[in-house]
Amino acid sequence: MTLPIARDVATLRATIAGWRDAGQSVALVPTMGALHAGHLALLARGRELADRVVTSIFVNPTQFAPTEDLARYPRDEAGDVAALVAAGCDLLYAPGPEAIYPPGFCTAILPGGPALGLEAAFRPQMYGGVALVCTKLFTQCGPDLAIFGEKDWQQVQVVRRVVADLDLPLRIMTVATVREADGLAMSSRNRFLDARARAIAPALYRVLSGIAEGRAPVRAEAELLEAGFDSVDYVALRRRDLSPGGEVVLGAARLGAVRLIDAVPVSAGERG
Amino acid sequence: MTLPIARDVATLRATIAGWRDAGQSVALVPTMGALHAGHLALLARGRELADRVVTSIFVNPTQFAPTEDLARYPRDEAGDVAALVAAGCDLLYAPGPEAIYPPGFCTAILPGGPALGLEAAFRPQMYGGVALVCTKLFTQCGPDLAIFGEKDWQQVQVVRRVVADLDLPLRIMTVATVREADGLAMSSRNRFLDARARAIAPALYRVLSGIAEGRAPVRAEAELLEAGFDSVDYVALRRRDLSPGGEVVLGAARLGAVRLIDAVPVSAGERG
Repeated sequence: MTLPIARDVATLRATIAGWRDAGQSVALVPTMGALHAGHLALLARGRELADRVVTSIFVNPTQFAPTEDLARYPRDEAGDVAALVAAGCDLLYAPGPEAIYPPGFCTAILPGGPALGLEAAFRPQMYGGVALVCTKLFTQCGPDLAIFGEKDWQQVQVVRRVVADLDLPLRIMTVATVREADGLAMSSRNRFLDARARAIAPALYRVLSGIAEGRAPVRAEAELLEAGFDSVDYVALRRRDLSPGGEVVLGAARLGAVRLIDAVPVSAGERG
Repeated sequence: MTLPIARDVATLRATIAGWRDAGQSVALVPTMGALHAGHLALLARGRELADRVVTSIFVNPTQFAPTEDLARYPRDEAGDVAALVAAGCDLLYAPGPEAIYPPGFCTAILPGGPALGLEAAFRPQMYGGVALVCTKLFTQCGPDLAIFGEKDWQQVQVVRRVVADLDLPLRIMTVATVREADGLAMSSRNRFLDARARAIAPALYRVLSGIAEGRAPVRAEAELLEAGFDSVDYVALRRRDLSPGGEVVLGAARLGAVRLIDAVPVSAGERG
């Protein structure tokens, strides 16, 4: 079986218009490629919720700062296509940069509320880029729903806020984070962990889980450093919408050149 | 005949969904109310281009600076409704502030390119507000096309740019400015001109037209002051997309508390 690939908006919309004419619903799974089991769980959820699933792959330059890892962000379209075929994806949308940022492009979106603090304190350019590219993917594709992973908890809240504020006619759904056997959240950046770092990395989940289970967060940073992390950007307990409260534990820490993030809901029964 | 009025997004979308089910196309005429013959020309064009015409009335607070005339901007919904019925409007969308800016709203749109300079040099908050409210009206209503007047030339270029950059699936159409017999562009703010100011006001069109017909713009400001304007914000010759060039003459000048703007294309045959 081959996977249809759309590389421009016209092709994307023509394919989806055909499905719409047949009365079919559409789910979008936005990704930056380098797909792993976490992405495939989003796709599986999409197949449950909609008649057709589109996966997008676009490594969005506007959400990386000049000092960040855009150039070395993993890219493997052939591997991704094979995984998407096996997972029953209906269409890959893999736009070139000119389909997202054509000549003359000059509009920015500034998200507020959940886009402030936590990740944004360390990656101030990121959520503007996320808000922009997600808005464009949604208006280009016109899905009934889009599916995101809970690991990027703050990102989901930002996208939900922007979708509500701009009245974009789709629902945002989430899927629980898929983890390695030792608890490490699946991430495209995990491949950059060497053996020593890979052995240290699960401590992030362990420490966040401990707080989610009731331990005081006061020693979290020290525990991560003792476990071998080089630095801790933040560990925070928040409500699910990121306002003050105790519903989800979020953290980000650095291991050499790799920055890991994770999020652990206090009670699995309350997942948003 | 009565005019259906939607005051929230759900009612708006339900009405339009009924039209869509019947295969009908939809034009949107976004206004701030206080309707005059210029607005009705937009509506008439909408009736030519689409099966159904929605007119929106929303005096958007985010495009006014605190020092500007939001509080005294003319409001006359009863008069507007009568005019819309006579003109064959199918639906008035008159949202309350909470339908546009609900609690927790915190997203901004920052337009660039055509949103810089000219009006923006004197009303720096305006085009961010215009971009935001137009994006929301478009995503709330989902029209095939939206219609704007050429008087607000820069606004049209901003809206076109934002629609292109955010991939909003509609066309932006324009209608030539409707003028009084002496050339004054119809504007809701004209009602604030007293008899003396009303006699001076047509000089703006006269001076801009002179430049459009080939006169050098060097004396434009002096001519407007000599005609009785109190100050001139700008007179500028630009390409239609507002890049440097000579396709449209734009101007803004103040008469007491009233600020007038106008735009005159160099050749009527080239109107965009």
